[in-house]
Amino acid sequence: MTTQPHEHIVKSYDEEQRRLVEEIVRMGQTAVAQLEAALDVVDRRDDSAARRIVANDDSIDAAERRISQDVMRLALRGPMARDLREILAGLRIPSDIERIGDYASNVAKRSIALNASPPMPHVAGLRALGLLAAGQVRQALRAYSEDDDELALRVRENDAQLDRQYTALFRELLTYMMEDPRSITPCTHLLFMAKNLERIGDHATNIAENVWFLLHGDRPLPPRDKRDDTSTAGPA
Amino acid sequence: MTTQPHEHIVKSYDEEQRRLVEEIVRMGQTAVAQLEAALDVVDRRDDSAARRIVANDDSIDAAERRISQDVMRLALRGPMARDLREILAGLRIPSDIERIGDYASNVAKRSIALNASPPMPHVAGLRALGLLAAGQVRQALRAYSEDDDELALRVRENDAQLDRQYTALFRELLTYMMEDPRSITPCTHLLFMAKNLERIGDHATNIAENVWFLLHGDRPLPPRDKRDDTSTAGPA
Repeated sequence: MTTQPHEHIVKSYDEEQRRLVEEIVRMGQTAVAQLEAALDVVDRRDDSAARRIVANDDSIDAAERRISQDVMRLALRGPMARDLREILAGLRIPSDIERIGDYASNVAKRSIALNASPPMPHVAGLRALGLLAAGQVRQALRAYSEDDDELALRVRENDAQLDRQYTALFRELLTYMMEDPRSITPCTHLLFMAKNLERIGDHATNIAENVWFLLHGDRPLPPRDKRDDTSTAGPA
Repeated sequence: MTTQPHEHIVKSYDEEQRRLVEEIVRMGQTAVAQLEAALDVVDRRDDSAARRIVANDDSIDAAERRISQDVMRLALRGPMARDLREILAGLRIPSDIERIGDYASNVAKRSIALNASPPMPHVAGLRALGLLAAGQVRQALRAYSEDDDELALRVRENDAQLDRQYTALFRELLTYMMEDPRSITPCTHLLFMAKNLERIGDHATNIAENVWFLLHGDRPLPPRDKRDDTSTAGPA
């Protein structure tokens, strides 16, 4: 016999696996683009662009559904249990990306509400926080795409920096609200927007942890600092 | 040949499938219990009970990891693609439950911060919102456990009621903050706690939608009202 059917199947399985990783990374890039667009509309106070971002979120949701079905179809014809981790990562990472897309969309949506009030000085801090979050997502996707466990660990460690910036902004906003009660409504939106960005950082960390899991199985990760201490500590 | 190895495998596959559904429902009940305990500690202002709830969240996270691996192991020995939906639901529902557990734990955590301030009258409204959310999760789990598509639809529709109560509480809190700037810090915690409960309702809806998907595949669900309009509408 000269044909090697088994090898052929294995090869196309690997190709399909690779195609799926690429599709997941593309899905992630769409989510990051949505986030960056959301940060822009906050700056530009552009309601109609914000509505477009909110509408675009459907395509991320659709991608997650499509990818999870493709991953499962692949799993069901897969050679064996050694692919378990690959499959689980292929389901969990799109789910994190889908949530990142939701948060980006919510930032855009709240920017519309924010535009009903005069411009706020804290938008700059929000933007800095958002760009940090976008960078974390990009790095996590790169770690996934390139099987880079060290980069994954770095993403996980850098989340503490994002949390510190979030906590600082949170406290600044509270102080501002106390000084000027008229700022309470817009500041509340900014609080939720900041929280969304902090959550995006957590999902970037989840992606990074899934990359670690993919590469090293259940080998435990070192313990890490708590993520958001605004829920236990009051403002300065 | 008298032995029927294939039938035997199919039967134990179904049994294992059933065992997993039960384990997922148990995981869900733990999350609801955590939520109810979190609502209680808000009322009782009991910091040490709150810390216990936060610590318990680890067991929900561990259950999700264990279940998702069991679901995948089952998938990999599964008869065929007809089980695709079952498997996907078996991965997605625990992921929603895991998030519900996180939100419950965060409500407990914020109650500790809240206890640094004098008691707030809005705690009653928060509790009502939380009990509604807990009811929604219970119903969604029952729909999953009993393959009840009508109950799943009802859960999805009832989410609008939870959103209305959330929006009312949100506006009440904003008004209160404007009237008394000293209430801003505790009210901010209450805002986030209320938001957590509203998100729990969304995850109950996700579970209900996964039950629909499990029973009817991609047959579309009727469109539904938006979930949270505090991000577009200011307070009354």
